[in-house]
This record gives sequence, C-alpha cells and structure tokens, in this order.
Amino acid sequence: IAREDASFIRETMDGVNPADISQLLDEVDGERAKYVLDVLNNEIGAEVIEELEEDTRRDFLEEFEPHEIAEYLVEMESDDAVDIINDLPVKTREQVIASINDPETAAHVQELMRYDEDCAGGLMAKEMIVANINWNVKETIEEIRRQVENVERIYSVYVVDDNYKLKGRVSIKKIILSGDRVKIQSIYDEDIIHVETYMDEEEVADIMQKYDLDAVPVLNLQGKLVGRITIDDIIDVITDQAEEDRQLMSGISSDVEEDDTIWAISKARLPWLIIGMVGSTLGALTMGAFEQELDKYVTLVFFIPMLMATGGNVGIQSSTLIIQSLANRSNFEESLTKRLIKMLFTAVLTGLVLAVIAFIIVVVWKGADQMQFGFVVGTAIIGVTLLASIMGTITPLILDKLDVNPAIASGPFITTTNDILGIVVYLAIANLLLP
Amino acid sequence: IAREDASFIRETMDGVNPADISQLLDEVDGERAKYVLDVLNNEIGAEVIEELEEDTRRDFLEEFEPHEIAEYLVEMESDDAVDIINDLPVKTREQVIASINDPETAAHVQELMRYDEDCAGGLMAKEMIVANINWNVKETIEEIRRQVENVERIYSVYVVDDNYKLKGRVSIKKIILSGDRVKIQSIYDEDIIHVETYMDEEEVADIMQKYDLDAVPVLNLQGKLVGRITIDDIIDVITDQAEEDRQLMSGISSDVEEDDTIWAISKARLPWLIIGMVGSTLGALTMGAFEQELDKYVTLVFFIPMLMATGGNVGIQSSTLIIQSLANRSNFEESLTKRLIKMLFTAVLTGLVLAVIAFIIVVVWKGADQMQFGFVVGTAIIGVTLLASIMGTITPLILDKLDVNPAIASGPFITTTNDILGIVVYLAIANLLLP
Repeated sequence: IAREDASFIRETMDGVNPADISQLLDEVDGERAKYVLDVLNNEIGAEVIEELEEDTRRDFLEEFEPHEIAEYLVEMESDDAVDIINDLPVKTREQVIASINDPETAAHVQELMRYDEDCAGGLMAKEMIVANINWNVKETIEEIRRQVENVERIYSVYVVDDNYKLKGRVSIKKIILSGDRVKIQSIYDEDIIHVETYMDEEEVADIMQKYDLDAVPVLNLQGKLVGRITIDDIIDVITDQAEEDRQLMSGISSDVEEDDTIWAISKARLPWLIIGMVGSTLGALTMGAFEQELDKYVTLVFFIPMLMATGGNVGIQSSTLIIQSLANRSNFEESLTKRLIKMLFTAVLTGLVLAVIAFIIVVVWKGADQMQFGFVVGTAIIGVTLLASIMGTITPLILDKLDVNPAIASGPFITTTNDILGIVVYLAIANLLLP
Repeated sequence: IAREDASFIRETMDGVNPADISQLLDEVDGERAKYVLDVLNNEIGAEVIEELEEDTRRDFLEEFEPHEIAEYLVEMESDDAVDIINDLPVKTREQVIASINDPETAAHVQELMRYDEDCAGGLMAKEMIVANINWNVKETIEEIRRQVENVERIYSVYVVDDNYKLKGRVSIKKIILSGDRVKIQSIYDEDIIHVETYMDEEEVADIMQKYDLDAVPVLNLQGKLVGRITIDDIIDVITDQAEEDRQLMSGISSDVEEDDTIWAISKARLPWLIIGMVGSTLGALTMGAFEQELDKYVTLVFFIPMLMATGGNVGIQSSTLIIQSLANRSNFEESLTKRLIKMLFTAVLTGLVLAVIAFIIVVVWKGADQMQFGFVVGTAIIGVTLLASIMGTITPLILDKLDVNPAIASGPFITTTNDILGIVVYLAIANLLLP
C-alpha cells in the first residue's frame, strides 16, 4: 500500500471478502485507507466501509468529500446508509444528503432519518420485495428482477393490498415451486408477524427471537408497510445490549473501548469510582458512630472486610438472577410474592451455611474463649445475607419499572450499598450482643 | 384445557403461532400439556416442543412414550431433534432412536450425535439444498421440490462436485432469475466461507457475524460438505454466551435460573461466597498483623471500606475492558506493551483524581490537624488503583491463555483479591508514613 501501486492492490484485493479488507484497513491510517478504496469499485468499497469499526470509519470518512461519501451510500442498503450519515458531523451530513444522485436512495434516507435510532423505524431498511395481492407469480418474479440490485437478501415476499396494507407473505420457496400464472392470492400465507415503527429495538429483537424470524415487516401507525428489519441488525442489537449490560455491571458509565483515549476511559470510569468512595465514606461515618465499641474490641474490626465482601457478593448474585428473569420475560410468570418468598428461603439457607463457616473461622483463629465474636460474626452474616438478597432483588425490579436498565443494579451501586449495609448490621449486632 | 374439550382446543389453537402455544404450555402441568399436544397435529406439535423452555420440556417429555417422542422428532430439523434427544435420560434416548421410523432422520440423528454439542458439528443440521455443479437450474429446482418438506429455509443452494466437495453456492435469487437450462456451473459463486466440524461454536458465531452470513456450510476433515449452520442457532450461542458471562461476573457458578429449586440456586451461589469469605479472612489476618497500628490510630480503620471499595471497583472495570477487547478479537491488534502502558497511564490519572477527593473527604471530616491521615489515604488510593488495574488487566489475559472464560475474572475473584490488596497496601503505607 505504501508504494501506492494501484494495479497491485486491485489484484490482491480481488476475491478477498470485504470484511477482511475492512479488518486490514482498520489498521492503516485514513489517507492510505482512502487510497485503497479509491482503487476498488464503489460496490465493494461500500461494503468495506459498512464493515469498518465505528471509530475508524468516523476518522476515515473525514478524508472524503461529501459527494464521494454519497457515491458509496447509493450502493448500500438504506438502513446502513442512514447509520453512516447519522454518524457524520451535522454539516457534512447535509452536504452528503444533498449530493446523493439517486432520487430513490435520497428519498429513503430522508424518510429513515426521521426515526429514532433505537426503535424499529431506525433499524428497518426500505429494501424489500413487495407484491400486490392481485399479481400472479410471473409479475412477482418481474418485481424481484427489478429489485435485484437493491435487495441483497429476499427471505420472504410481502403481500399487500392496493392501499399498501400488509396482508401476508409468500416464501421464495413457494414462488419457485409455483407456475407462472398462479395468483399470489392463492398461495400467500396470512399468518404474519409484524412490528410497528415506534417499537423499541429490544422488543423487536425479542419478537424475532421468539418466533425465529429472519426478517420482520414494519408497519407505520396507519398499518401501511414501510420497511423490514433483517436478522443481522438484530444480532447487532443483542450484542450491543450484552456489552452495555457488562459495562453497567462493572460500573463503566459510557460506551468506551480499550482503544479509546486515556482521558475518555478515565472519564467513563470515574463517576462510579467516586460514588463508591462517597458510599464507603458513609460506611466510615457509621464506624465512627461505633468508635467506642471498636476501640474496646479491636478484633471486631478484623471481620469488617468479611461482612462487606459477603454483602456485596450476595447482592450482585441476587440482582443478576432477577435481571436474567427480566430479560426472558416469557418465564417471568410466577407471582411476585411467590418469588420473594423463594428468594428469602434461599437467602436463609445460604446465610446459615455461611454463618457456620464464619463461626468456625473465628473460633479457629481466635480460640474457643473468644467464641462470642463467632456468634456476633455468624449472626451478622445471616442478617447481611438476608438484607443484601432483598436489596439485590428489589432494586432491579424498581429500576425496571422506572425504565432504567436494571443491569446497573448489578454493578458498583449494589456493592456500595451492601458494603455499608454490611457494616451497619455487623456493628449494630455487635453492640447488642457484646457486653 | 381442564375440561379436555378436544375440538375446542383444536379450534382455539388454529392459526395461533406455535411459539405462543409453547409459552402457554410452559405454565400448565405435564399431563395437561400432553393432552393439548395430542390434539394438535404432529408438525405443529413438533414446533411447540422445540420452543418450550428446556426445563419444562424435560419434565414434559417424561409423560411421553419413546415412540411418541420419535414421531415428533421426525418432523423437526435434525439439529433440533438431536438437541432434544441429548437432553433425555440415557435409557429413553436409546429407545427413542430405535423407534424413529424414518430411515433418513434416524441416519441424520445418529451422525449428528457423534459431535460434541459445543462445536460446529453439534450445531449443524443435515437439512440443506445441495446441487451438483453439473446440473442445470431445472434439475436444481427439482431437488428443491424434493427437499421442500425437510428444509424450512433455503438461504443458498450449495454447489458440490461429484465427490461432494464444496465448490461454492448459488443464491436462490439467481435461480429464480435464470432460465431452466442455464448450467449451475455458469452461475455459481466460488467465494464461499465455510466452517469445519470441529470448530468451537463461538468461533463459528464470530465468523458468521463478521461476514454477515445467514447460513454457513460445514465441511468435515476430508473437505466434504456434511451440514449447515443457520443464523438462528448462532443467536442462541450469542445469547447463551452473554448469560454465561453475566453469571460468571456475578459469581454464580452453574447455569441456574430464578425458577430452579432453592437448593439448586443456593448450591450455585455458595462456592464464590465461601471463596469471598475465605479471601476476606486473609484480609483479616493482614489487619491482625497491623493490630498495634490499628489500636494506636482507630481513625485508620474507618477508611478500610473506602480502600476495599476502590480496589474492587477499579479491578472490575479494568477486567471488563480487557474482556471486551478479547471478545472483539478483530480490534485486538495493539501490541501488549502499548496497551499495558496505556492502562498504567489511565490508572495513574484515575488514581490521582480519586486521591484528591479522598484527601478532601478526610480533611473535611477529621479536620486539618489530622491531615496526615489524608496523605495516607490518598497515597494508598493511588497505590491500590495502580495495583488493581494491573491485576484486573493481567488476570483475564492469563485466564484466556489457559482457555478459561475470562469473564470469571470480572466477578468475585477480582473483588476478593483487590479487597485484600487494598487492605495490605493501605496498612503498609500507614505503617510507613505515620510516626
């Protein structure tokens, strides 16, 4: 690449999958990457741009003139084109849209840009094969031929009436197997699942997973067919969701990756770290209130980490179990009371086992004459396990009701709360039980 | 259902999606569910069984005779049939296989059972459309017609030579648009990505995601086409992986769900809780070693939770970032040294900010005359942030090298280690700095 040998690049890249070219270009700087793209034809170039990492793509497109970007966009499916436009600086965005030559693409892009990125409207593409219910198979095949350039994968042909209302679908298999003159009306399947433009992307993902769909038609509020969502977009939704959950669980507050700048990473990490510190200051204040007891029995201090660790771990486990159930709403049918009772029993059982172990640890270490500490620590462990389970179960449920991603409750939030809880319960019990 | 009114059930269920029937049956007991299935026809029944929750299905199939199960299996795609067989008790398994009437299904099932569930061979189905390279379009369409009952979704037709070696693929779109007499040889696409039977399921998922594939052909060691993996199976792999990571991150050691028994849940939760307790006992022993200092300056004790919380949170954040990079291997190209240096800079920056805040908290609380504690806590925070970052970064890398899922390192393991680390660093620094 360094030698800018056009024919060499063209030859080497011939037959290489665009996804591999993208991976290669992720590693070189914008100017050189642009050179490679200029050499390739626009169709492959468009695929390469689609597959680039988001960050690389942003830097990379800065090297291009708006009309050059527009040329690539024409080759893409409308949903991918809009994703890329939405990622551009506002000014470039307008210029790019203005320079799209193909009137159909321009119309599609403008329509799709109206929708929020996280809803069905923002996921859907305008490219699909639509047949009128009064057509026959031959007319439908002609339509497929007309659309062949635009629609990469067909999956199903959607059947609409004269008002573009969705009536059903015909599988491509049925079209192949039916004679040219067979009416669509007589072979289409009325049972069809659809989504609506305003639905949340996760709801769409759930529906497509539940019914095992490769593509789902999108209707607008008037019931007209306006686009379709394909399974590859849903995989991205699922993967992004898993990544977001993981980050929330670990207290990273915005979407960062290891190759972001040091400053960006620190900024995403600091909020929860600071909250954790402030939270533990409350723990410190609690300990301050029990200063006398702590002064009298220094041994008490030694078991503070144990109470904190147990509270934190129990809380995270409980919230993860609840979050998991919330994610699979289908098996979320047991009544709330029944589930809370079950959670309490589990907490009691777990707490008892841990308390016995804690008691043994204390007695082995401190000797049988200091058994009273064993009782204090054991009782406190049971109390903390119970409270942390309740907190860990209720917090995600409340967050979910408030439409906040409950994964945040499996993170530093629950650890910090339970750390404090652990200290308070422990010292209160010590205060009660010790002379 | 209670009244066992067969015609009523048949009528109500008519036109209802099997996935919805499954959801309904998840809620009733095995015997009643069986009654509903007996009323429905086998094809729909098979779909309903496929869609059931794994636990419900296991209980449910106990109600059936082996030959009844076999009848449903014949209606399923081979990969789903094998998944269900693998879930049966060993004895029933043999009986079911023996009672499969359809010789083709029996052969497929037996072949697929040889493969490990977690590899490409275990994911693939035998159902696919294969065309010989010497056929023409008409012959291919006849093959599609023959297979129409078995292959639910076609995606692509795979092209093989006389030895069943994979040569390429033809999209179904191209078949529709080509005349009957056109040779497959002249329209097939040689660029085809395949996987091999022994590949790990996650590797297959990565490949299908990277190249945006709906289906991928599977070759055996001899290069012969033996099956194909479809995108819906990959979605399950991705979802399961995300769930497994979440559980590992929260210290739940086996795959449990909220609706498992109290005992199963407790058993899955206890191991990490016990490890956490033992770990914090080490923290306690450390504090024991500094008993004199703690006795002299009780104030020191108050900030132990802060150091523990910071260490734990920093460690989890660092490991999550690394694990995320490990998951997207494609952008994992920066050299190890470069990344470690970056991680250290981030840790220093984060540590400095936190240290300043900690210093302010201490001084505000304890007054300017106890500023020495502010210095101790601040310095300790920097030390802990650095050490926890290093631990959090290196542990997942080592686990990954050892082929252990690194997500485990974002869980109680890192918290416990860093809790102890926090205490040691803090008390050591206090010992050094205080008179």
